[in-house]
Parts: sequence; C-alpha cells; structure tokens
Amino acid sequence: MTKSIEIICVGTELLIGKTLNTNGQWLAKRATALGLKVSRIITVMDETNETALTIKEALKRKNRFIITVGGLGPTFDDKTLEGIASALGCKLEVHERALKMVKEKYYKYIKEGRMEKAELTSYRIKMAKLPEGAEPLVNPVGTAPGVMIKIENATLIALPGVPSEMKAIFEDSIVPLFKQVAGNVTFFETSLDITGIGESAVAPLIDQVMYNNPYIYLKSHPKGAERVPRIELHLSTTAEDSKAAKNRISKALIQISELIQVKGGKVRLLKTK
Amino acid sequence: MTKSIEIICVGTELLIGKTLNTNGQWLAKRATALGLKVSRIITVMDETNETALTIKEALKRKNRFIITVGGLGPTFDDKTLEGIASALGCKLEVHERALKMVKEKYYKYIKEGRMEKAELTSYRIKMAKLPEGAEPLVNPVGTAPGVMIKIENATLIALPGVPSEMKAIFEDSIVPLFKQVAGNVTFFETSLDITGIGESAVAPLIDQVMYNNPYIYLKSHPKGAERVPRIELHLSTTAEDSKAAKNRISKALIQISELIQVKGGKVRLLKTK
Repeated sequence: MTKSIEIICVGTELLIGKTLNTNGQWLAKRATALGLKVSRIITVMDETNETALTIKEALKRKNRFIITVGGLGPTFDDKTLEGIASALGCKLEVHERALKMVKEKYYKYIKEGRMEKAELTSYRIKMAKLPEGAEPLVNPVGTAPGVMIKIENATLIALPGVPSEMKAIFEDSIVPLFKQVAGNVTFFETSLDITGIGESAVAPLIDQVMYNNPYIYLKSHPKGAERVPRIELHLSTTAEDSKAAKNRISKALIQISELIQVKGGKVRLLKTK
Repeated sequence: MTKSIEIICVGTELLIGKTLNTNGQWLAKRATALGLKVSRIITVMDETNETALTIKEALKRKNRFIITVGGLGPTFDDKTLEGIASALGCKLEVHERALKMVKEKYYKYIKEGRMEKAELTSYRIKMAKLPEGAEPLVNPVGTAPGVMIKIENATLIALPGVPSEMKAIFEDSIVPLFKQVAGNVTFFETSLDITGIGESAVAPLIDQVMYNNPYIYLKSHPKGAERVPRIELHLSTTAEDSKAAKNRISKALIQISELIQVKGGKVRLLKTK
C-alpha cells in the first residue's frame, strides 16, 4: 500500500501572502522523518466547495493519508469540516464525545478564571459537529478537537491551524498511526557546502553519482552571492532501516566529494541528521 | 475575464520540509497587492509527469495566470519546462534569444573572473530549451531565463526558484503585465489586536460586520497564550480604487471595534497598508 500523504492547508490568509505556511513545512518534515512520502502540499481558500473539491482530487490520487490544516474553529470561515462532509457526501452531526471535549475545555477556562461564563452557543457547538463516521482527536492545547475519518483505502485527518494545537494533536494522535504504517522505514539526510565550482559544472557530477547510487536523492541549491559560486548539495534517502540508510548516504557522499575536488571545488560537510 | 492565479511551486526540498516556501508567500503577497486573486498554491515534486498533471489541472480550473516556481536550472531535476511542454503537448527546442541570454551570462562571468572558461555544455544549453511558442524573460540576477507562454485564455509563467532571481524577473517582466490586467484594482488591509475576549465570543460579532459590509473580508487569528485570550483580526478588501477600499475598511473597522468594546474586549489598531 502506498505511504503517500497530501497536505491541504485551508486559509485565505495564506493565499493573500499574509501568513507564511510554516504549518505545511512542519508537517512535511515530520511525516518525511517518520518514513512517509509527502506528494503534494496544497493551499486553498476557506470556502466549502474549494475544500471539498481539493479533497476529492486528493482522494482520486490514491493517497494513504490526507491531512487538512485549519478551519476547525468557531468562526464563519472555519468551513473545513463542511468541506470534508461535502467531499464524502455525508452530513455533519454533533458528536457526543467531541461535544464533551469542547464543554470540558470551557469548564477548565472558567475554573482558571479565563472566562466568567461559557454558554454553549451555536458557535461553540459547531466545533463538535463532525462528518458522520468521524472520530474526534483530543486537543491538549486548544478548544477545537482534531478529526479523523477512515474511508475505504485512505484516512482523512483534520487538524486546527493554530501551530501549537496542530503540533500537539499530531504528536499525540497521528505519530503512533504513522509509525505503524511506515514500520522501520527511516529517512536520512545530509548536506554539503560546495564552493569554487558553478552549478552547471556540478550538474554532470550529480548525474553520475545518482546513476551509481539509485536510492539516493541529490539536489543542488545555489546559495552564491553575485561573484562567489556556492552550492548546498542535499543528499537524502529513505530505507528499511537506519543503518542501510546511513551506509547508502556515506557511499554517495564520498563519491560526490571526490568528483567535486577533482574539478577544483571545495567541499565541507554541513550537517547530518 | 477572471483575474485568478495559481502558483505551482516545484521542488522535492519543499515536500520533505527542508525548505520553507517563502517564494509562494512572496508571490501571493505581490499578486494580491497588484489586484489579482491567488486561488491556489500547490507544491509538487520535481518530476515531469507530476508537473505536467498539476499544470493541466490548473488550466482546467480556468485561471488567467499560472506561475511555476523552480526547476529552470541546469541539473537533472530541473524539469519544469519538460513538464510544461508535456502539459501543452509540445516540444522543447533551443530558443535562439534564450541561448544568447545564457551565453552572455557566461561571457560576463568569465570577464568578472568568476569562471575561467565556459563551454556551452548540454547542461547549459538546457536552460535555453523552451517549449514551442514560449518567450524567454530576462533574468537580471542569475543565468536561467524566465519563460512566458501565452495560450488560449491563460498565460503560463515559469520563474526560477532562487528567490533573488524569481523576484527580479517578477518585478521586471510580470508586474507590468499584472497591472495591465488588474487596472486600478487595489487591495487594502489592516489588522486589530483584540484582548480580553475569546474567539468564540468574537465569532458572532464578525458575522454581523461581514453581513453589514459585504465587500470586507474579516478573519480572526487566535494568538493567545494559555491563559490570555488574544486575537488578531485582519480586515481586507479589493476595490476598483484605493479611496473606495480605504472607506470600506474604515466603516467596518469602526463597527467591529465598537461591538468588541461593548462585550468587554480591548482593541488596538496594528497596522495599515
């Protein structure tokens, strides 16, 4: 079964360039480190039809997981669950356990003196209205629960857009699930700082190393200022165990370093994770 | 004619979470400020079929502009132009003017002492191979030219992924085009810092102001720490001229401030652009 994920970031603030999409990067990094493959990150506006369409398209692309980020809160433009329900052709209904989670949060806020009273207004109940068949995920930081829906060959996960809430739900509820799916698969990466040689001169050397090391992904990132060519060369691999991953990377690292030095370039190891 | 844009960011480094997508945000902000509407930002891996599929999907969604970012350089994984050619069902061919641009860059590098010699290797010629019917855009900073292709109802623009090169080509070659399409349309935004009232209590107030101010988009962003509710409320509008935009925002700003203060919240104006 494929281990691919699509991340759908919902929010007009991202499309007008107000907010930098750090959530997308964080999720991509965590999912990759856990051995899964992020195939797309899509940002769409917080509009029911747009969200629904994007989810339907992601389902057609046979992803194992689809994670939405944002749009679970109490305001009018928090429409992600409506979008999911529309995509799956089901209804939104108050989920008793989700409602209990929301209620308990407000009791806690009153107890802590953050609020005087907390009526369960329609805006607050909204956060407990989930698509049929969905389960709420405990939000250890904020009010709106995360949501998980298992469908035929995929799992749909909805996380809130507040970074601390998204991260906490991911670590508590999603990491164990990803580990189970990925097994022992490990992602391993390292970077070289290359100076004294230009990107188009490095290009054939990369080709050669990629050819000799079929499981290694090499990518050059030009970093140079106007007069000094400088390239960051990133090497990464995903392997069934971490020893195999490290061995593969080492072999490619030695080969590319030698080739670059022969051409007059200088090489420095930047970092190893 | 619609003024919508999709931004397609090509690069595996974005999907493994190595690189934060600041290019996407920068383009979204600039395009919005120029009066256009960014409908999606999509990140895909640097793979010909993936790029081609994403472009075809974006064309089906009737966008006026599609901008790709990344994948124009000399290395094996710079495949964006291949992806575009595949999406449009055309060939890549050496474009004489593009080749001249690339050659002149290398002559310049030699003259400046950055390179000793610069053979036109296949890796360098690659940067001048454009889809049939495309025109190169001068790259004032780096080597690979940008690319523009006008098709029936849309314009496809390919920019390099190095931020300084992307920005320079955008400012020189794309801004005049966007201004022509958008006319006098202006985007205007401002933000309020709200304390002493929670997001679910602000939600019905936002609804009321949105109802009374149909052209204003209000969006609340919870910023609070554990015990102190704090919300950034962002107001924005796109109008035919800047005076109309400012007047609209002012009206909504006064109304929402009053409503929040009546409910015991505090309001501070954050910024106005």
